[in-house]
Order: sequence, then structure tokens, then C-alpha cells
Amino acid sequence: MEHKDYTILLSYLEGRQFRALKEALDQMNEVDVADFLEAIPHDRVAVVFRTLTKETAAEVFANLEVELQQAIIDAITDRELAGIIEDLSVDDAVDMLEELPANVVKRVMQNASSDTRNLINQFLKYPENSAGSIMTAEFVDLRRTMTVKQAFDHIRATGVDKETVYTCYVIDSNRKLEGVVTVKDLLMAPYETRVEEIMEDSVISAVTTDDREEVAALFSHYSFLSLPVVDHENRLVGIVTVDDAVEVMEQEATEDFQKMAAIAPSEKPYLKTGVFTLAKNRIVWLLVLMVSAMITGTVLQRYEAAFAVLPLLVTFIPMLTDTGGNAGSQSSTLIIRGMATSEIQLSDLPRVVWKELRVSLVVGAVLSVVNYIRLIVMYPGNNMLALTVALALYVTVVIAKTVGGVLPMMAKLVHADPAIMAAPLITTIVDAFSLVIYFNIAQTLLGL
Amino acid sequence: MEHKDYTILLSYLEGRQFRALKEALDQMNEVDVADFLEAIPHDRVAVVFRTLTKETAAEVFANLEVELQQAIIDAITDRELAGIIEDLSVDDAVDMLEELPANVVKRVMQNASSDTRNLINQFLKYPENSAGSIMTAEFVDLRRTMTVKQAFDHIRATGVDKETVYTCYVIDSNRKLEGVVTVKDLLMAPYETRVEEIMEDSVISAVTTDDREEVAALFSHYSFLSLPVVDHENRLVGIVTVDDAVEVMEQEATEDFQKMAAIAPSEKPYLKTGVFTLAKNRIVWLLVLMVSAMITGTVLQRYEAAFAVLPLLVTFIPMLTDTGGNAGSQSSTLIIRGMATSEIQLSDLPRVVWKELRVSLVVGAVLSVVNYIRLIVMYPGNNMLALTVALALYVTVVIAKTVGGVLPMMAKLVHADPAIMAAPLITTIVDAFSLVIYFNIAQTLLGL
Repeated sequence: MEHKDYTILLSYLEGRQFRALKEALDQMNEVDVADFLEAIPHDRVAVVFRTLTKETAAEVFANLEVELQQAIIDAITDRELAGIIEDLSVDDAVDMLEELPANVVKRVMQNASSDTRNLINQFLKYPENSAGSIMTAEFVDLRRTMTVKQAFDHIRATGVDKETVYTCYVIDSNRKLEGVVTVKDLLMAPYETRVEEIMEDSVISAVTTDDREEVAALFSHYSFLSLPVVDHENRLVGIVTVDDAVEVMEQEATEDFQKMAAIAPSEKPYLKTGVFTLAKNRIVWLLVLMVSAMITGTVLQRYEAAFAVLPLLVTFIPMLTDTGGNAGSQSSTLIIRGMATSEIQLSDLPRVVWKELRVSLVVGAVLSVVNYIRLIVMYPGNNMLALTVALALYVTVVIAKTVGGVLPMMAKLVHADPAIMAAPLITTIVDAFSLVIYFNIAQTLLGL
Repeated sequence: MEHKDYTILLSYLEGRQFRALKEALDQMNEVDVADFLEAIPHDRVAVVFRTLTKETAAEVFANLEVELQQAIIDAITDRELAGIIEDLSVDDAVDMLEELPANVVKRVMQNASSDTRNLINQFLKYPENSAGSIMTAEFVDLRRTMTVKQAFDHIRATGVDKETVYTCYVIDSNRKLEGVVTVKDLLMAPYETRVEEIMEDSVISAVTTDDREEVAALFSHYSFLSLPVVDHENRLVGIVTVDDAVEVMEQEATEDFQKMAAIAPSEKPYLKTGVFTLAKNRIVWLLVLMVSAMITGTVLQRYEAAFAVLPLLVTFIPMLTDTGGNAGSQSSTLIIRGMATSEIQLSDLPRVVWKELRVSLVVGAVLSVVNYIRLIVMYPGNNMLALTVALALYVTVVIAKTVGGVLPMMAKLVHADPAIMAAPLITTIVDAFSLVIYFNIAQTLLGL
């Protein structure tokens, strides 16, 4: 998505050629119309928005950022507002209401029908990051005794406002979920067939309180287009559609990238986040890690005598700590990502340890040999120094990779987020180890 | 996806109760059946696979890993093989053929019908990571003059084997893409309406040679369920479905995690990758970074006199380099991820630099003050030392964050992958800067 070229649209807007503008916008995808509205001056948004047809208005509105949604709400009449609210999916309405200031929320709710208001209030209660928080209520429900013909009539009569019509949910009179049937199945069956004959009755579903990340994982595992969400009595209360699952996946990946870089996760785009918020999100972990590194520093004080005698020892510290940190971060990254994509389970701990141990023996050997050769070439006659550095590097790499592999799994074991056991923390931990190892080997081999 | 409980299924298998096993498997989702086959001994896979109905067999087969696909191919007759190949989607067939050994590929191709063989051969030619490599040929095509009734008849007649029937593509007699119409639109329209009256004629499509990552980004931006892929003459040759786009997103995120941890990217799951492959994927970058860190080390040699006089200086090195590395990695991570999700464009470079500069001034100030206070408390009377460390830290953080923000964008500018400008490389670069700054400030302020 490179920034689009809006030259023609903007010239219509500047020339107040609203008819031409409307015709051009009508041809465009709703997401593109929303992108265009984001790109024009805020005080022109409402006038452009009003040129949209009723059908596209709600969908364009749902794709806008909350600042623009508010600008539009402030500019339109109660009647227009009521129309938009009724056309919005309940998940989009809830997303918006959670961000709007209280006085705007009040006006929105006053203009919603009582049914919509009740539904929105119910959805607002689901916990953050739960399946309930990403589901929507606009689904097609059928009864098992309906014929295919009746099912199609029902879809035709009610389907316009549904989030998806392609997967229909079969419920009983208590709204308990009994089965699913796809429009493809319905299309392939004769008109007089009953829904119960073609429906799939072992249905994979989520509960409203399930973690939204687990729900998204079901989509990628099973290639679902939508997933039913039930309450604790197995009553169907909503569905999650694949586009919302994709959004969750992207957000969760972004969150992991942030956590793994020692940043407090934030969903707000970088360019729209203020300097102080960005600073705040970064400072806590930097402070924690800085204090940890200070402790590592005090470890070094014990060996002051050693590097006072042989200052050359100090010049190998960056190589040793950086390589240890990198080796450990490689392992922790693979394990954290493997757990995030459900490939690696807690029960795989022994396999992970055994694998990392062997990998580290191979990798450590290569790095140590390269280092040893480089040192005897650069510092001829200093064989014991070369041996000290090579040996310290070997032990560091083995410890780093084992620690890097194990710590994320330990975090999971105590129900912490594995993603915090990433490069920054691993580097700090490995630093302390590697320096103690290095100077102890130096003291022994070089007799310092 | 915790590991599933297969106790009952396994007891059927051990007791040779194939009828009960078959009935249980028929009730299960195809992906779950595939998971079960992955979990049983390889020599039992073929016998279980043969109990599956023809309808589910191909779908289960498509969800298996290539080792098991090969085991099954080796165990079944030519006739059974031919049946499976015809039922497979061409994208699944191509994925498999790219991994199978040549002799097995030969047998598969010999048993395919000539149409299928031609199609597979055509698809095998699309470059890796292109839209062509992830698309499939099983889509519904309509003509603009068809009525809705005719369209439904066409879907009923041909839809069974299609990857999706929900988005239908309208093409002319030269197979040029003219529009799309969804089954929902068809359901909502009267039977005698012509397709051209309800189809959307400004179609967003991809070209076979487009990057698959850009194609996946279109899905998350527009919430598509499928996307048409055309050749360079705008002829419709295939479609990408959302499940394949989701897979690409996950793989690309995993690849970024790997690259950002200085690992050569690999699509193979961690637990199934051998020790030497894992070692090989990690060693190259470790060596490059180790050599870079050695160069940093030689920089330190210039200041040997300084830390021979004041060994205490050395103990602040880990704190300084780690904090610099962490501060720089935070910035580079946010920028890399922002560019991966298309939020940040190259044209945003000035905004990014300005933002990172201001953030680093805030963050650097906090960290420096904390450090200064700690040092005058711990080393009373050593005010100039405290000032040296605090000042060096401040300058380091500012440089680190600016470098961390700029380098990924520079990589993009020269068409390299921004993800390599991540924590490991940034840390190594910042290390060198921070040490030079530190010892120069020390020499000036402490008169060493």
C-alpha cells in the first residue's frame, strides 16, 4: 500500500464538483474511500462523507480511525447518526465506542434503537482480548428442520446486513448451537433436502471468554472463514469472521515484536504516537536492563586486578558479550516464535534443551576455532591468551543457547509471556555469565 | 492447539476396529484427521488413510506434511493415486511436487490426467514467493450476459471442486477479467437479473509475478476472501484464497523474527529441523557479527592506557553497550515492523528521524540522571567519573535511537531487507560508537 494518488479526487473536491466526486467514490472499494477521507483536511471529511450512498456510508465509516469517526459524528444530524449506527456491525460499533469520549458515546447510544443499544451494552462487557471482544452478532441462524429452499428464503430475507452469509449456524429453540451448514452445501443440495441432513454436527466453536489469540490460531489451523462463539451454556451469541482473525494475528505479531525488543506493547501506529508515549513505552525496560547491566559491571570489579595487569583482556569483552548475546537471542527467538505459532509445546522442553545443546556445541566450536586462529595470528606467542578467549567463547555460546532455549519455556510454565525472554533480557543475563567465565578462565590459564 | 487426546482412536487402531475408526474419523474435521495421521506410526498411515471417504481423502492428504504424503503415495495403487491428484487443488499439488523426490514426482505426473498435468506444469513455473506460486486454478468463472439463474446453475454444476464459490469472476471470451460478483449479491438479486447489472467492475487484482507478501497485505487491508490473479495480458489465471494469504502472513512474520535475530530464514518447523541445519542457519551471521565485534575490540586497544590508570572505567562498559544496543533495537524494531505492515513508507524518513531524535532526548535524559545519581551515591567524591558515564550514556542513547530508526529505512532505500538492520547488527554498530564516545569523554573530563 504505497500512498495513493488522489490528484483527480482532490481536484473535484477543491473545485466543489461534488457530483463528479460522488461518482468517482461510488466506483471505489470502501476501504479506499476511507483511505481517501483519512488523507484530506479534517474539516472537509463530513461534506465528502455525506455524498456517499447509504449502503457504502456505514462500511466506509467502519474503516475510519476513531478521530475521523468522531469528526463525522459531530458534523451530522441525529437522524443521520441513527442510520449509521443501525448499519454498523456490532463489533465495529463496540470498537468505536471504546475509544470515543464519554459525551460522544452518550449521543451515539441515545440515537441507537433499544435493540441495538442492548446488544452493544452486552458486547461492551466482554473482557479485552477475549473472543467476545472480537465477535459480531450479525450471523445467519437456521433451524435443523428447515428445507434448503426455506434456508435460502431465510438468507435472502435477512442476509443483507449479515457479516457473512456463507456459513450458517443451526440452532435449537434455546439458541443452543447444533450444527453448521455452508452456502456451498446448500447450493449443492436439492431444494427439498432438510438442513439437518446436510449440516455438519460436530462444530468447532469458541467460548466468549477464550483468548482472542487462540481463536485466531484456530483460523490459521483450520482455514475457517468464520467461527461460532457460544456462551458458557453453549448458546450461540456471535461469530468471529476471518478478517477480524487476520487483524488479531497482525496485532499479536506486532505485540510480540515490541515485547521482544523490550518495548511496552501498543496498538497505536508509530507515526500517530506522541513522543512522550513512545518514550514512556521504552523507558521502563531500558531502566530495568540498565540496572541489571550495572550489576554485571560490579561483577567486573572483582577482576580489576586482572585487567590492570593485562589490559589486552578488556579488548575481547565486546566480542565475547555480543556473540553470547546474539547466540542466546537466536535460540530464544526461535522458541518464542515456535510457541506463538503452537508448533512448540511445554512438553517439548527436553527435546528443545537437547537440540539447543547440540547446536551450541557445533556453533561454539566453529566460532572458537575462528577466534583462536585469528588470535594466534594477530598476537603470536600469546597462545594461552588465545586459548583463554576461545575457551570462554565456547562455554559462553553453549550456556547462551541453552539459557535462550529454556527461559522462554520457563516463562510459559509460570504463565508469563515468553516474549519477554528475548534478546534484551537474554543478552543481559548472558553478559554476566560470560564475563565471570572469561575472567575465571583467564585467572586460571594466565595465572593472573 | 495443545496436543490432542487420541486415546480412543488409537485403541480402535490397535484393536483393528477399522469400522469404528472410520466412523469416528468421518465425524472429524479434515485438519484434525491429518493431525491424527501425523501422530500415529508411519507404517500405519496408509491403512488408516484408505478408510477415508473419497471426499475427505484429498482434503486430508492436502493437509499432511510431505513425508507422509510420500508414504501414502508409495503405499497406494496408481488408480487411487490418480483419484487423489484429480481431487487436489492445483496449489496443494504444486506445493507437494516441489518437495517430493524426482522419482515420486514422475509417478504422480504419470497418473495425472493430461489437463491436470498441463496445469501443474504451468503453475510450477511461477517464481518462488510470487502471487503465481500461492494461487490456485479452481475458481468459478461467469459471463456478464448470464442471468442470476444461469449463474447459480453454473455454480451448482461446477462448484463442488472449486476452492471457493463465494466470489465468482466474470470474464470475457478471451478470459480477460471484467468483474466480480459474490454469491451474496447473487442471492439478493432476482433470478432474471443479468450478472453485469450486479457485478462490481472495478476489480482489485494481482499479477502472477507480484510479491506474495504484497498480495497478503491486500487481504488484510481490504478484508478479501479471495483475490483474482491475472497474467500480464489481464487474463484471469487463478485466485488466491484468504487461507493461503493467512499462511503467507504467518510465514513472513516468522521470517522477519528469524532475520531480526540474525538467523537465515527457514520455513521448516524448529522441531523438525536437524541440528546441523539449525547450526548452519545461525553460524553465518554469528561469524559476521563476531568479526565486527572484534573490530570494536581493537578500537578499545587505543584506550588501554586509560583503563590501566583507572580500571573502574571498564566496569561501566557492559551497562553502556547493553543500554545503547537496547535503545537502538527498540527503534529499529518499531521501524522494521512499521514498514512490514506498510504503516511507515520511505517518504516518512524525515518524520521518523525527528521523532526518534526527540524520543532519544527524553529517554537519554532519564537514563543519564538515574545513572548519575547512582554513581555519586556509590562512588562519593568521583563527580567527574559520574559525569563521564552519564554524558557518554546520553550521547550513546541519542546516536543509538537515530541509527536504529534510520538504518532499516536506508536498507529499504537500497532494496535490501530492512529486517537485517535489527538488534544484532544495531548492537554491534552502536557498541563501537559508544566505546569511542565513552573513552574520549573520559580522556577529556578525567584528564587520562
